[in-house]
Amino acid sequence: VDVIIGLLLILVVAKALGELCERLGISSMIGEILAGVILGPSLLGFVDFDSTMSIFADLGIIALLFMSGAEMRMDRLAGSALPSVSTALGGMLVPFSLGCLVGLMFGLSLIQLLFLGAILSVTSIGISVRTLIDLKKLNTKVGYTIVEAAIFDDLIGIVLLAVLSSLALEQDQSLLQNLIPLVVGIAILLVLISVGRKRLEHLYEKARKARSHEMPYVLAIIIGIGLASFTQLVGLHFAIGAFVAGLIIGPQIRKEINLLESLGDLAFGFLATFFFASVGLLIAISSDNLFSWMIPIIIILGLFGKIAGGYFGSRHFMKSKGGSLLVGIGLCPRGEIALIISSIAFINGIIGEGLLTAVTILVITSVIFTPVAMRLGFRRFDPESG
Amino acid sequence: VDVIIGLLLILVVAKALGELCERLGISSMIGEILAGVILGPSLLGFVDFDSTMSIFADLGIIALLFMSGAEMRMDRLAGSALPSVSTALGGMLVPFSLGCLVGLMFGLSLIQLLFLGAILSVTSIGISVRTLIDLKKLNTKVGYTIVEAAIFDDLIGIVLLAVLSSLALEQDQSLLQNLIPLVVGIAILLVLISVGRKRLEHLYEKARKARSHEMPYVLAIIIGIGLASFTQLVGLHFAIGAFVAGLIIGPQIRKEINLLESLGDLAFGFLATFFFASVGLLIAISSDNLFSWMIPIIIILGLFGKIAGGYFGSRHFMKSKGGSLLVGIGLCPRGEIALIISSIAFINGIIGEGLLTAVTILVITSVIFTPVAMRLGFRRFDPESG
Repeated sequence: VDVIIGLLLILVVAKALGELCERLGISSMIGEILAGVILGPSLLGFVDFDSTMSIFADLGIIALLFMSGAEMRMDRLAGSALPSVSTALGGMLVPFSLGCLVGLMFGLSLIQLLFLGAILSVTSIGISVRTLIDLKKLNTKVGYTIVEAAIFDDLIGIVLLAVLSSLALEQDQSLLQNLIPLVVGIAILLVLISVGRKRLEHLYEKARKARSHEMPYVLAIIIGIGLASFTQLVGLHFAIGAFVAGLIIGPQIRKEINLLESLGDLAFGFLATFFFASVGLLIAISSDNLFSWMIPIIIILGLFGKIAGGYFGSRHFMKSKGGSLLVGIGLCPRGEIALIISSIAFINGIIGEGLLTAVTILVITSVIFTPVAMRLGFRRFDPESG
Repeated sequence: VDVIIGLLLILVVAKALGELCERLGISSMIGEILAGVILGPSLLGFVDFDSTMSIFADLGIIALLFMSGAEMRMDRLAGSALPSVSTALGGMLVPFSLGCLVGLMFGLSLIQLLFLGAILSVTSIGISVRTLIDLKKLNTKVGYTIVEAAIFDDLIGIVLLAVLSSLALEQDQSLLQNLIPLVVGIAILLVLISVGRKRLEHLYEKARKARSHEMPYVLAIIIGIGLASFTQLVGLHFAIGAFVAGLIIGPQIRKEINLLESLGDLAFGFLATFFFASVGLLIAISSDNLFSWMIPIIIILGLFGKIAGGYFGSRHFMKSKGGSLLVGIGLCPRGEIALIISSIAFINGIIGEGLLTAVTILVITSVIFTPVAMRLGFRRFDPESG
């Protein structure tokens, strides 16, 4: 039970700091990362990132990506896709290129460049959406450009994660050797997505009629962990499978509010906490790291790149420069995907503790920066004119 | 993720066999134990009882006892307690004494005798209650004698678990040295029960108003694991703390059906499965064990002892011998507490694989036997006359 006491400590401190952050208007994720920093080797040294924590962190990643797949409404993408695709692409390409450029100057290797670019370019706009709702601006042109762009952003982020993790896991192989399982894996997943949805509807009909009352709940967990294990076996990161599982089961889960809530409780209330805290456990905040030149560079690249990319990507479709700037600001938040990609890179020895720390601080900064900047921006520019 | 694949295998096979058992009218627990037998060293050898499985099994015990505490309505015990106390005591003392007697004949040590007696005497009448409901006999005198006796049985079982596990964990100490932390621990728990309930009501008021949507859910998990860790620290088994936690939070959880469901999903749909399967992983079914003389002896002692004990304990309060016999049959099912006590005894080297296997087979037998015997019994005797 000693191991369980470690989990308990994480849970108590993470949830307390998470609630504190929420009350300050910041995402609870930040509090959960800080709990890891405080309890981990950086400060108190009470909890280590040991094998148990690693399993719970993995389950947390699976839960997070499963839920983000389950909450993604692909049917909503049917409408006018051009502005959001252009915005998403702009918002990704600019920070990606900037990251690669600066990385080149510092002499990083190809795989390091790709990881740095990817980490800088993936968005997690849950925070922007909440801010838009708070400001009652979700139904403005700026609002839905951000939300739609974010869906593409997420999808591209997942593909980037797939490509990069397959590179990271098989570093001894050539690019081509990596490409084959990747392409095969993605092809199988695409087939699963298109075929799976209908089949799952039948399976869920049966699960609802099962004698075991918890069958729909268990089925979701089994399919989530099952596809996660499958993608791991074919050489992709298990997070991809969890996301696809969520995407496929999403419509079934959304049919029953109780089921959606119960799985959300498990994911956000319990498992995901261990992932966010483990990021805090992994980074080593020391005077060396904290005053490293890397941190300001990463933050500037991360924020400036996204704002510029979102601005240029949406400029053609917005009436005013202010509206485009707001779109760029709205794309700034980084979240779980950036953390997942950088923790994969760290665990596989591609990036060091310094860069992991810098990225984590970028995530924290962007999450605090965005709502403030959006509030000011909407006050300054006329949002209705878009 | 290799570890996670082990968990996945357990989950898939356990839930499939569990559902099969439910359809056959047997408790799904049996299917989950069988999944462990099939996947474990007894048959296929795909999954081991390793450190990860042990953590999940422990979390399963915590979840099970938390929920059984949470579902226990102590306020319902206010009524006429004498018949149920007498029935519960009879139903425990007879198999306990029989177990000790037979154990003495085989030259077991004192602690082994106590464990054997305890394992034989604890009941888990969920199965009887369901059978009573199916037969529409819950509101007969036989029905409520069984249900009320079961609540006392459960409480005595928990106390037995507390005493025995403190003996098992500190075998090198004298009985008196064991007794002090035990008494202190139980005293603290009793104070917690009486004081905690009111305090928790305030805490839960706050949790419901928290910004973090999952706070009431997390709070239940934290208090469950927290009290479990506490009892472990003072030298009692952590299962006791989990049970007390459930007992204290119960009224708060029952206020919100969604919360109760969500925690039930986590407990019965996910975590408890790993405990039941781990029992199957721990026992080694070999030709040696399976044809051991221990199995028929344990089964006869277990079933006959309970029927006789329940009969004599209730005889004074029932109008007919048939009614008393039905009460005895209704007390027969063994379940998670018997399995928890025997797995503690096994892990601490008090009982061997042979006895663990025999007890597991007693659990399986009693669960299959009871509904059939009750159905026949109610047909044979007039239940209304009690």
